[in-house]
Amino acid sequence: MNKVRIGSVGLGRLGLRHAENIASRMQNAELAALCDVDKSKLEETADRLEVRRRFTSFEELIACKDIDAVVLVSPSALHTKQIAAALAAGKHVFSEKPLGVTVEECRQAEKAVEAHPDLVFMLGFMRRFDESYQYAHDKVAAGEIGRPVLFRSYSQDPEKFIQGAIAFAPHSGGQFLDMAVHDIDLARWFTGSEPETVYAIGGCYAHPEFAQYQDGDNVSCLMKFKNDCMVFLFAGRTAPHGYNVETEIIGAKGILRIASVPQKNLVEVLDEHGVRKECSENFLERFDTAYVNEVQEFVNCITTGRKPAVTVYDGKRVSEIAYVCKSAFEQGVLLKF
Amino acid sequence: MNKVRIGSVGLGRLGLRHAENIASRMQNAELAALCDVDKSKLEETADRLEVRRRFTSFEELIACKDIDAVVLVSPSALHTKQIAAALAAGKHVFSEKPLGVTVEECRQAEKAVEAHPDLVFMLGFMRRFDESYQYAHDKVAAGEIGRPVLFRSYSQDPEKFIQGAIAFAPHSGGQFLDMAVHDIDLARWFTGSEPETVYAIGGCYAHPEFAQYQDGDNVSCLMKFKNDCMVFLFAGRTAPHGYNVETEIIGAKGILRIASVPQKNLVEVLDEHGVRKECSENFLERFDTAYVNEVQEFVNCITTGRKPAVTVYDGKRVSEIAYVCKSAFEQGVLLKF
Amino acid sequence: MNKVRIGSVGLGRLGLRHAENIASRMQNAELAALCDVDKSKLEETADRLEVRRRFTSFEELIACKDIDAVVLVSPSALHTKQIAAALAAGKHVFSEKPLGVTVEECRQAEKAVEAHPDLVFMLGFMRRFDESYQYAHDKVAAGEIGRPVLFRSYSQDPEKFIQGAIAFAPHSGGQFLDMAVHDIDLARWFTGSEPETVYAIGGCYAHPEFAQYQDGDNVSCLMKFKNDCMVFLFAGRTAPHGYNVETEIIGAKGILRIASVPQKNLVEVLDEHGVRKECSENFLERFDTAYVNEVQEFVNCITTGRKPAVTVYDGKRVSEIAYVCKSAFEQGVLLKF
Amino acid sequence: MNKVRIGSVGLGRLGLRHAENIASRMQNAELAALCDVDKSKLEETADRLEVRRRFTSFEELIACKDIDAVVLVSPSALHTKQIAAALAAGKHVFSEKPLGVTVEECRQAEKAVEAHPDLVFMLGFMRRFDESYQYAHDKVAAGEIGRPVLFRSYSQDPEKFIQGAIAFAPHSGGQFLDMAVHDIDLARWFTGSEPETVYAIGGCYAHPEFAQYQDGDNVSCLMKFKNDCMVFLFAGRTAPHGYNVETEIIGAKGILRIASVPQKNLVEVLDEHGVRKECSENFLERFDTAYVNEVQEFVNCITTGRKPAVTVYDGKRVSEIAYVCKSAFEQGVLLKF
Repeated sequence: MNKVRIGSVGLGRLGLRHAENIASRMQNAELAALCDVDKSKLEETADRLEVRRRFTSFEELIACKDIDAVVLVSPSALHTKQIAAALAAGKHVFSEKPLGVTVEECRQAEKAVEAHPDLVFMLGFMRRFDESYQYAHDKVAAGEIGRPVLFRSYSQDPEKFIQGAIAFAPHSGGQFLDMAVHDIDLARWFTGSEPETVYAIGGCYAHPEFAQYQDGDNVSCLMKFKNDCMVFLFAGRTAPHGYNVETEIIGAKGILRIASVPQKNLVEVLDEHGVRKECSENFLERFDTAYVNEVQEFVNCITTGRKPAVTVYDGKRVSEIAYVCKSAFEQGVLLKF
Repeated sequence: MNKVRIGSVGLGRLGLRHAENIASRMQNAELAALCDVDKSKLEETADRLEVRRRFTSFEELIACKDIDAVVLVSPSALHTKQIAAALAAGKHVFSEKPLGVTVEECRQAEKAVEAHPDLVFMLGFMRRFDESYQYAHDKVAAGEIGRPVLFRSYSQDPEKFIQGAIAFAPHSGGQFLDMAVHDIDLARWFTGSEPETVYAIGGCYAHPEFAQYQDGDNVSCLMKFKNDCMVFLFAGRTAPHGYNVETEIIGAKGILRIASVPQKNLVEVLDEHGVRKECSENFLERFDTAYVNEVQEFVNCITTGRKPAVTVYDGKRVSEIAYVCKSAFEQGVLLKF
Repeated sequence: MNKVRIGSVGLGRLGLRHAENIASRMQNAELAALCDVDKSKLEETADRLEVRRRFTSFEELIACKDIDAVVLVSPSALHTKQIAAALAAGKHVFSEKPLGVTVEECRQAEKAVEAHPDLVFMLGFMRRFDESYQYAHDKVAAGEIGRPVLFRSYSQDPEKFIQGAIAFAPHSGGQFLDMAVHDIDLARWFTGSEPETVYAIGGCYAHPEFAQYQDGDNVSCLMKFKNDCMVFLFAGRTAPHGYNVETEIIGAKGILRIASVPQKNLVEVLDEHGVRKECSENFLERFDTAYVNEVQEFVNCITTGRKPAVTVYDGKRVSEIAYVCKSAFEQGVLLKF
Repeated sequence: MNKVRIGSVGLGRLGLRHAENIASRMQNAELAALCDVDKSKLEETADRLEVRRRFTSFEELIACKDIDAVVLVSPSALHTKQIAAALAAGKHVFSEKPLGVTVEECRQAEKAVEAHPDLVFMLGFMRRFDESYQYAHDKVAAGEIGRPVLFRSYSQDPEKFIQGAIAFAPHSGGQFLDMAVHDIDLARWFTGSEPETVYAIGGCYAHPEFAQYQDGDNVSCLMKFKNDCMVFLFAGRTAPHGYNVETEIIGAKGILRIASVPQKNLVEVLDEHGVRKECSENFLERFDTAYVNEVQEFVNCITTGRKPAVTVYDGKRVSEIAYVCKSAFEQGVLLKF
């Protein structure tokens, strides 16, 4: 079997991680090309990872015949255009979330994907590839906790990264689009259902800078899903203890909690602060393996002719839902889907 | 200092516990009389607890000169009438929750209490007297976690008591009045604020019997408080693991979780099920000490001339809020306070 | 039933606590007299607890006809003499540990107790009356974990009380006698067996002051019991996190751990130190209820004519064992019992 | 940089895992050859992992010019001979533990390694490459917990694999050699010291089959190290809850616990058994990443010319210590080193 030759696009923090993962932690794949507008970062990374093909132009990358697939970790605003162009060039496409920055863009991406049924498209909802989330999902799917009653999910970024969050605020789309999309995806994945209503609140509790973008530093919403499951989501940027992504699924017969302590590892410290576990610092630490697993799944789909379980429709649907949550939050009203 | 002579009214499960506590676990108090309509239970209990004065009539109890105070653990529908009568008879009054079964009743109770400023009236929101809740409240009050961002509180009864819950359903008033009142009280106590809006959902996920009373077996609500604190409450009757009362207060600078594992004690079991903690079975087990503490505080207020921190106004306000939650749930709408 | 009239002897920290407990947290008992050589402390405490009979002389106390029982919390060196005298005066006796400061003293106490089979004698091994230890013991006794394989028990005092420990070092008898006696008692209680061999080590890891008394600031021993159960005990005075008393019983079919986190209460703090539980500060906090329960059991034995499960023989045997551990430690050898 | 071409020897359970890891989870390495006496297993595995060079003869493998290094996961009795032969053939050598089955063998291996200072030799003490153990070791090395007081380490295999353990008993060398070697290595690594005395006990608590080999199903030992650190090790084959490897290091200023709950992942289950974490099933699950890391470190040493921190001396020394523990256990005496 020939290795899937991947061109990785974008060398920001996550892009760099994906490139490194493809270079050394993947089966049946090779990092065949790198693409970034920053030429010096491109050269430095390509040298380090021993990648020969280097592009500052995305168009030239996808024109390259020695590339089978692209992994898009470019700025969100470029996603849909690049997805369409790469597919048109006959490349399989893995795109980091979000699918697009507007629902209209997502619909265009959906059309582009549908127009190329022979190519693999996958969206990077990495939490689905975390072993704890997968383990919990298997149990739910096997009926071990019975009918879903309440789905609760938190996405909290550490306060210590708040300056970066403030700087990114004009482009983030707000917390529902930037952070809660992962929780929305999980809610749909775990419940197998879709939202019917949403009420969303929140505000700027520590950092008034977000208010000018109609955003808060902490927000939440309560949704009723079509199967009657209650869904409570919370997204915050001021977590004191670290990067906290936790989920609880209360079923009629059992309850599962995933990462209710975002422990860094298996070490427990007993000192003057009590008995404590230190926490994950950021998404790269917490979802280290999940980021490998998701791209590996993309590769496996290509090599085996399967289609990924995370579809372009999921990406579009999650964006639609996040926009309704955002509207409910901005208007302070109850909205129906 | 003379002991406060208490007449305890009602010998149901909690009433019996209060009577036993007053008889043997209280300072500066004595169980001077017992009152219950069930004469055989009354005699049996009074014999066991060595109480001489025994009444099947509440009116006769409060006419008794050798009683300083009454503890009401009678059926909810009798509370307001008994409160008014006891106060009129010059007795200090401790009443179990709820204050009354309608808001109108609560207002009458409020008037009765206001008409007797010389007497102590206290309502039984026992969670405020649990050492863990008190410890957390002290930290919040001291500013240790900063401004409150999200207050989340669960009240879950074990599935194994579901038959009792179904039998009581016609009289419970629904989960917001029956269970969530404690969480509403905590939310007001911890945030020092009042609700502004509420959206409530839920349903019958396992036991359709509750639907005929416009109730669910699991319900939740999201409230925005006047200080912008987000408040998420969940009440359920199908907890698989035990009696689960847990609360989380996310502040801008720190987070507290109270009883996120409703552990029965400090024993950890390692067996074929993994590493586990067994859970509290019911409210009497979980709040054993809190039930003592609250009546002790009532007694201390009488002996020292203080007024309790839990007022009749708290009782009325919590009922008002619970009724609005109930309406929001029944109508499926967003309501403002 | 008449209340058991108790004279409490010794008003140090634990003595004061016992006196307060008897005064207000006990059924069928009353604090009838107090005895301490420090007259001002005696008067102050007796005033506060409303105790009329006050003695600076132990002999006068036991001569008092209105006392049924004594609770001895006097200096260890006085225990055996006071036990014998009180029994001779016809009083029931509860004595705090240790039974005596030498094995010979313990044997004399044993004889005194045997000479008064009509009187109740009980020794204060309070851990047996802690609800978590009782819960675990019930499981072990019921065979739930199978045959005991390894019994591990820690007694750690917080570093922050080290100055007190150093000051008390000349009189403590060393850690095996001062601290590990509780663990030795638990080992015998849980395994139902007796030690056969012991190897003990340790030293002064932070505080060389203990060396002059042939003691260490941290010590441990490994014992083989007659039923082949392995017993590992650790006693330390430098715990950074609080007062840590934990026990693990590994059985052939299951494992129990008691208080592996010496959590102060059910509050979990999430802050810059991670996710943490604050710890108990001292024995009075950790064993608050156990101290009530043990004296209540003493009272119940008196009122019902039962004999306590903790006997004078247990006290003597534990002292004998602790002395052998101490010898093994001091000589650096393996000893047989 | 050319990839290190590795020949992997032995395709038992762990051998297979190493082969798979080298094939797909390693940087700068390739699985260049496989060797096993079972030809059908060899062919099947080599086909699956796409390895062209296949050997049923170890001698032929090391004669192959296209191999830079060997990874030995062969039967323990072959280790020292194969180490010497591979080194003599100019190959770098990674050997799984134990170094040899007798101390004499270990010494021969040591000589062979010393005779080839230009080649990399590394022993597979994988726990040192587990991220939690590394994290803890960094803290200890940085002085965060102060002087080591007590080192406690458990190695427990699940009861459910007992039949395999019984079958392997004639060849295992007993629990000190088979299991406790890892804990001995950790004790030396964490304390930076060597044992001075040891007392060891244990027995057959559930499975008398081990007695005929002078082994037990559960054993323990207490050692005094030269730096006065107390070291308590426990090894058992009857763990009810899973594969339990846990370590505690009590320092004079802080305490660390590694994997005190051998949790499978971050999922917590709340059901009729309480609140629980499911446990790792075996060493391959618990140390999955560590097995990758250790071989990666071997490869990195080869490519960078470094020498591994785990040396042949460590392997010899650990074997010497384990043999003394075994003797102490068999004779029931205290031994000095």
